[in-house]
Amino acid sequence: MEFSALLTSAGINIAVCILFLSLYSVLRKQPHNFSVYFGRRLAEEKFQKQDDYFSFERLLPTAGWIVKAYWCTEEEIRQVAGLDSVVFLRLFIFSIRIFSITSLVCVFGVLPVNYHGKEITHDHIPTEPLDVFTIANIIEESQKLWVHCIALYIITISACILLFNEYKYISRKRLAHITGSSPNPGHFTVLVRSIPKSDNELLDDTIRNFFVNYHGSSYLSHQMILRKGHFQRFVDRAERAYRKFVRVRLSVSERNGRSSMSRCGVCGVRASSFQVYRNKFIEAKKADLTNPEVVDAQKNCPGALVFFKTRYAAVVASRVLQSSNPMLWVTDLAPEPRDVYWSNLWIPYKQIWLRKLATLAASVVFMFVFIIPVAFVQSMMQLEQLKKMFPNLRGLLNKSFFARVVTGYLPSVVLLLSLYTVPPLMMLLSSIEGSISRSGRKRSACLKILFFTVWNVFFVNVLSGSVLNQLNVFTRPKDMPTMLAELVPKQATFFITYVLTSGWASLCSEILQVYNLVYNFFSNCIFCCQQNTEYVYSFPYHTEVPKVLLFILLGFTFAIMAPLILPFLLVYFCLGYLVYRNQILNVYYPKYEMGGKLWPIIHNTIVFSLVLMQVIALGVFTIKHSPVATGFTILLLVATVLFNEYCRHRFSRIFEAYSAQDPVAAVG
Amino acid sequence: MEFSALLTSAGINIAVCILFLSLYSVLRKQPHNFSVYFGRRLAEEKFQKQDDYFSFERLLPTAGWIVKAYWCTEEEIRQVAGLDSVVFLRLFIFSIRIFSITSLVCVFGVLPVNYHGKEITHDHIPTEPLDVFTIANIIEESQKLWVHCIALYIITISACILLFNEYKYISRKRLAHITGSSPNPGHFTVLVRSIPKSDNELLDDTIRNFFVNYHGSSYLSHQMILRKGHFQRFVDRAERAYRKFVRVRLSVSERNGRSSMSRCGVCGVRASSFQVYRNKFIEAKKADLTNPEVVDAQKNCPGALVFFKTRYAAVVASRVLQSSNPMLWVTDLAPEPRDVYWSNLWIPYKQIWLRKLATLAASVVFMFVFIIPVAFVQSMMQLEQLKKMFPNLRGLLNKSFFARVVTGYLPSVVLLLSLYTVPPLMMLLSSIEGSISRSGRKRSACLKILFFTVWNVFFVNVLSGSVLNQLNVFTRPKDMPTMLAELVPKQATFFITYVLTSGWASLCSEILQVYNLVYNFFSNCIFCCQQNTEYVYSFPYHTEVPKVLLFILLGFTFAIMAPLILPFLLVYFCLGYLVYRNQILNVYYPKYEMGGKLWPIIHNTIVFSLVLMQVIALGVFTIKHSPVATGFTILLLVATVLFNEYCRHRFSRIFEAYSAQDPVAAVG
Repeated sequence: MEFSALLTSAGINIAVCILFLSLYSVLRKQPHNFSVYFGRRLAEEKFQKQDDYFSFERLLPTAGWIVKAYWCTEEEIRQVAGLDSVVFLRLFIFSIRIFSITSLVCVFGVLPVNYHGKEITHDHIPTEPLDVFTIANIIEESQKLWVHCIALYIITISACILLFNEYKYISRKRLAHITGSSPNPGHFTVLVRSIPKSDNELLDDTIRNFFVNYHGSSYLSHQMILRKGHFQRFVDRAERAYRKFVRVRLSVSERNGRSSMSRCGVCGVRASSFQVYRNKFIEAKKADLTNPEVVDAQKNCPGALVFFKTRYAAVVASRVLQSSNPMLWVTDLAPEPRDVYWSNLWIPYKQIWLRKLATLAASVVFMFVFIIPVAFVQSMMQLEQLKKMFPNLRGLLNKSFFARVVTGYLPSVVLLLSLYTVPPLMMLLSSIEGSISRSGRKRSACLKILFFTVWNVFFVNVLSGSVLNQLNVFTRPKDMPTMLAELVPKQATFFITYVLTSGWASLCSEILQVYNLVYNFFSNCIFCCQQNTEYVYSFPYHTEVPKVLLFILLGFTFAIMAPLILPFLLVYFCLGYLVYRNQILNVYYPKYEMGGKLWPIIHNTIVFSLVLMQVIALGVFTIKHSPVATGFTILLLVATVLFNEYCRHRFSRIFEAYSAQDPVAAVG
Repeated sequence: MEFSALLTSAGINIAVCILFLSLYSVLRKQPHNFSVYFGRRLAEEKFQKQDDYFSFERLLPTAGWIVKAYWCTEEEIRQVAGLDSVVFLRLFIFSIRIFSITSLVCVFGVLPVNYHGKEITHDHIPTEPLDVFTIANIIEESQKLWVHCIALYIITISACILLFNEYKYISRKRLAHITGSSPNPGHFTVLVRSIPKSDNELLDDTIRNFFVNYHGSSYLSHQMILRKGHFQRFVDRAERAYRKFVRVRLSVSERNGRSSMSRCGVCGVRASSFQVYRNKFIEAKKADLTNPEVVDAQKNCPGALVFFKTRYAAVVASRVLQSSNPMLWVTDLAPEPRDVYWSNLWIPYKQIWLRKLATLAASVVFMFVFIIPVAFVQSMMQLEQLKKMFPNLRGLLNKSFFARVVTGYLPSVVLLLSLYTVPPLMMLLSSIEGSISRSGRKRSACLKILFFTVWNVFFVNVLSGSVLNQLNVFTRPKDMPTMLAELVPKQATFFITYVLTSGWASLCSEILQVYNLVYNFFSNCIFCCQQNTEYVYSFPYHTEVPKVLLFILLGFTFAIMAPLILPFLLVYFCLGYLVYRNQILNVYYPKYEMGGKLWPIIHNTIVFSLVLMQVIALGVFTIKHSPVATGFTILLLVATVLFNEYCRHRFSRIFEAYSAQDPVAAVG
């Protein structure tokens, strides 16, 4: 690929982006799209429904939304969208900062060195192949490798400083979030699972006796969770049918009220069907252990919510091992009512370790099966191979412009489309895993998608170019640095276009909400259905966080190999920052909090990216026979690992558990 | 090596063993050896010192000690030597059980199949080379491999059942130990380190305020730990000089009393120099923060012991994160007074993660540097190479008997001797690591020595025979099973003689206590010093556990490869059981308890041995082209890993922390 082809690709993408953003600024002004673009505001009913008058202004693209998104403070975002959104936006701030430094160092320091690496006469820049901008252009034993080594040090040290500050900042935010949140019954509650059944005692009494015995001074009361019976299911269905029937007459605001009423929460939220059922049932059949129905109902009890007098007591009860058999009386801090994943509560606790292993195995298998479409995409990069595969298209492919589009644009579109199947599948696997909270499920899915993305987008694309059997790399870990050092610069072209297509285009599709827009258009205008605003999406951290982290990984690994990628990445991060701010403020409605628990995942991935960058640099310095630079890089590698260890000891426990200080401070 | 050479080696060793055991039964009757052979009893003063009369009976070897050791019940052992001894002896009981089953299956099932593996006419058995007894004798695609696969299943399943029962038994013992032990001030105590220093408050007040604030209902009092000042060190030295001077006049029992008085404990044991010093100091200079000496002394305070009203409160305080900065207010349950490793308390907590990493790196480096002597030992096995190295000895080496001794006996003796340097070094590394208790240090050293032994005795010996660079095996993990399958049967001879020499001989040297005997002889009879009974050894779990586990590993890995090793191993375990029972009852004096925490290490190592056995069998079945057997072995491998995961979830937390039930049960 030549430099001009890259410019073509960039040109197409910039045009597409401007088009889409203008389209967005027009579409958001159309009242029938309000449910698509202002979901959160509608859900909170702050958004005053405007009259549907027509004006010419509605058809003019404007940049007002950018200004609005930019001038919103972090505290405002935290209040309307929770701590997780803040964490997500901090990721962009970190990226913009570090890649500004990296771009400065690499574009003005490393790029000229790469370009003049060999003593050749350079042509006109646009017709240069992209390889002359990569480290592959440097001759062996060159003194110029010092520049790369120094750039590596500058990037790593500034990344570590920024990472440390971010971790400190976010952990302070998390502590403020814990102590600052208003007291809420959920904070005093512990979820107990795997309660041992006894033959001569009601389960209700077993629970009471246990907690009075071992947490007597702080135990308040408890609430059994019971599976719905057949009758209750019938009532539920009747209620649902009634609601459907009545719907026509209800206004939006009335319906919103009802929807929160019918939600299946226990504490904080109004009495649910679970509670009603339980009260009726228990009071009628109390202490009647001879009745087979009671025994049967007891079998259906997956656990209980136990309430304590102080928030600290709940923390203690959730942290301390309850029984001398660790598989019994398993306690966790209860998730928020809306966050509880009720159907998973019925999974016997004894199965959970097995489910975790099984889903792990399933995701690993899926990761490797997915290589097939990626290999297909890679084969499309080779024009010659493509001509062989589709001989009919030979004439078309010989045309210069078309060839550029096929090699520069199409492969990443195919990859992007096939990647769309991954999040639902990983989410399903995470549900099977048995997490008791929706936020836990989302975090687990986020981790799975992260591994998947890094492996299938980065590694497979890097390796499949020349090594047919990718698994080979794991059978020879010693050769990995040199192998990566040989292969990574070759794939620079692909990843630059990947940033342009997947990165920029995904931002455009994110802000346009293409799927919802089309759905809304059809249901609204064609089929004339009523607006369905009841369902508002919560922010898809599990897909967006891995995407951003992948671009950070690409940025670090290619920083000194092929610095041309950096300006495009920087544009992505700046644009992404504005787009996601806008989306968080207008579209997504936070249903539950993860309390910033995503940051340790983000931190570890960024450190992994730094280490990968250093490993590849190590390989390059080895290939180019520069032992001193190799030595300095090993030093840097060790220092980075030590930095990560220190951060783990200093911060990670804050994200795992509450300390004694926090709940007490919250009360005081 | 021929079968007859093996018999020669076995003969020598049996003779040596009988000689040594007889010698022991004579030596133990000599009154001047009482301090060597009855250290524990002397320390407990139950042993009535017999008069030094001479009788002919004292020179006759007897077997009375075996009977005494055998008839002692487990409960008696627990009472005199603690739970750890019981755990250690259970390891022998497990080994005897599993290797009885394995011997039965392999000697009567697998051995004949191996022997008749090839269609050759067999000579007279004693002149057969040992290879015909190994799996190497089976031809490719043989139907007989089914026998090996079935044997594998029988061994694994019975090992898993036995392991599960042992884990259950020992965890029940541990719980009984926790609940059954008499209330002791140590149980109510938490050790706090890394207390933040404040400029305008005395440290004493900081600690009190913190615990009153966050553990108000259960906090009782606290006790600062202070480093000794210069003056105190001078007093200590004077005291030591005085004790040396006075020693001549004191009787043994008086001195014993004094030694326990001067011990540096805080709770339970009498006031130590630490306390006395602290009281004087604090009372004199109270609240005088302008005084630089007070500020200086505060800097010297590494932590404090905090006492709680209930045992459960202490457990809670040790489990819950105290501060929102996890590097401050670090709490652990206080070790027993005798168990505290005082000098490590002065290590700043912030250093500990770094120290752990550094010692880990140091032990790994040492592990690999140690390859050199092992490679030398291995080269001695090749007689031809030896002749090349020492041409002067050529005449001697050509003699048949001498050659047998050199190839069959000497290498393992050299290996054994060089292995003696390892425990002190690993113990040193574990001290540097920063454990606050002696038992923690010993457990850490045990783990290090275990890794070291398995790597340097098993892997290096197996691999160095043919592969010069052992590290190659890690660079190609995929080829590992087949590589091991090729190499392991070749080293069967070496390991059979290793069991004979290192195993049996180490038991003999253990019971004879050669080093102490010689030391005692010289100090007693030659230099006429007074008997020094003040120092009694505690049981060296860190050297003995890895040794026994290595033999279990050898047993499993060679069980179906070279079943000839099994009878020798079974003898080792039976003899070891008696010898260690005797030593635990008579020689070693338990100074601190690990509370059975060694068992998870033992369990994991045994499961690792099973997995290694299966991996090697996998390699063998692959080499011999038996795909069905390979498939069944993979199934077994997965099942073993799942079994281990289940055990980890079911039991391991019992060994890590106290549950809410245990301390409450202990109080009630």
